[in-house]
Amino acid sequence: MALASKKPTAIMSSSSSSLPPQLILTQDELKKIAAYKAVEFVESNMVLGLGTGSTAKHAIDRIGELLKQGKLTNIIGIPTSTKTHEQALSLNIPLSDIDTHPVLDLAIDGADEVDPDMNLVKGRGGSLLREKMIEGCCKKFVVIVDESKLVDYVGGSGLALPVEVVPFCWKFTANKLEELFCDAGCVARLRINADGNKNAPYVTDNGNYIIDLYFKKDIGDLKAAGDAMLRFAGVVEHGMFIDMATTLIVASEMGVTVRHK
Amino acid sequence: MALASKKPTAIMSSSSSSLPPQLILTQDELKKIAAYKAVEFVESNMVLGLGTGSTAKHAIDRIGELLKQGKLTNIIGIPTSTKTHEQALSLNIPLSDIDTHPVLDLAIDGADEVDPDMNLVKGRGGSLLREKMIEGCCKKFVVIVDESKLVDYVGGSGLALPVEVVPFCWKFTANKLEELFCDAGCVARLRINADGNKNAPYVTDNGNYIIDLYFKKDIGDLKAAGDAMLRFAGVVEHGMFIDMATTLIVASEMGVTVRHK
Repeated sequence: MALASKKPTAIMSSSSSSLPPQLILTQDELKKIAAYKAVEFVESNMVLGLGTGSTAKHAIDRIGELLKQGKLTNIIGIPTSTKTHEQALSLNIPLSDIDTHPVLDLAIDGADEVDPDMNLVKGRGGSLLREKMIEGCCKKFVVIVDESKLVDYVGGSGLALPVEVVPFCWKFTANKLEELFCDAGCVARLRINADGNKNAPYVTDNGNYIIDLYFKKDIGDLKAAGDAMLRFAGVVEHGMFIDMATTLIVASEMGVTVRHK
Repeated sequence: MALASKKPTAIMSSSSSSLPPQLILTQDELKKIAAYKAVEFVESNMVLGLGTGSTAKHAIDRIGELLKQGKLTNIIGIPTSTKTHEQALSLNIPLSDIDTHPVLDLAIDGADEVDPDMNLVKGRGGSLLREKMIEGCCKKFVVIVDESKLVDYVGGSGLALPVEVVPFCWKFTANKLEELFCDAGCVARLRINADGNKNAPYVTDNGNYIIDLYFKKDIGDLKAAGDAMLRFAGVVEHGMFIDMATTLIVASEMGVTVRHK
């Protein structure tokens, strides 16, 4: 999920170049600012959903730090992926799962796209299903992004809307998805393993494949689109998180903005 | 899926017990009568969906026989399970899949329940997902049952509505399903392996688990119920086949009835 993290994207001071020196922030530093802001919503005794990806990672680091300092106590973390599970363990954050804790107080996670209604696209990192299970049962869901993730409509970045599908006859399912969204100029592609082996499909935590959908136009009613995808027997889950985020934190050149729904 | 197949359930002749002798049919013989009737809809040059289970098995045997006799030619079969694949291979039925043949002329399969609108419950044998993918793209879908499968409403037999779920936190998903149908007195149970090992969940062809739902009452609007289940991220597919059957063949004490939709 990490984009080029060293590219300077923000100048926080507009003063002259002599003194004080310009403060140039990388995209990764913007993600960290958003993540730290999100952790301000965390209180002791909370059951917390711990997101996955380069932005969520900063939030989890911060929670570990505050636990170590004794500024937070009695936190239970619910990790959304194996990777996050390992990070949280290394930080001594006590962990559980939604079988044991089916209601969460708060979750913090990044997103690949955020539309004007705070609907999200997630799953470009591959872990959309577990994230959706966990973040679907949170009282509050704080989404943290840098401004590059804001889009006019779902798919508006030109990047993928990921859909998790069963491996059995995945081409058939990919064709069905393209047909469903033909008015939006949809192209469906099987995600290939990151190692670049073109014969090896990417396999999710649940043993499924990912079909990445690319759109030329807005697909319209997201709930209807989501239901239509789910009705295909080969579709396991899609990467749209509709009406789930309750708070959006955006770090940008202009500073940090917090928006509640 | 086979129920006690030796139990006499039908007396085809009501004449006196002296002569001619009573013709007593077992449930399995009724299934065979329905299956042979269904194969009358098969024509040469068709792409055929081949169902799974004790009733469909008779239909596939019959298709193999007609091919061998030269009464049918140029058939392509699309099997809905590994078991059916093996049976069809042994009968020399040429096979393909829906990646290659995404439109089928006809499918023949059994069902666990059939409601008055020809909506089905399937999957008590465990193969609902592949069946739904394949039977969802048929021009005609002929369902063959003995009369014991006819119900007033889905779940009305008191037997299970199967739901395929991801193994990750399946208890959470089972609880969500029970809550969704609490007005219908729903009880959700993880399906255990047929070998009776209570620590071993049944695993589907797709590596998933099955949650069996039992209802005390009618769940009402089936499409709404189906969409609501699919919106749970942990649910992969449910065993209701809504508005899919085009022809229903029922073998009963009264003879064989054929109903078109």
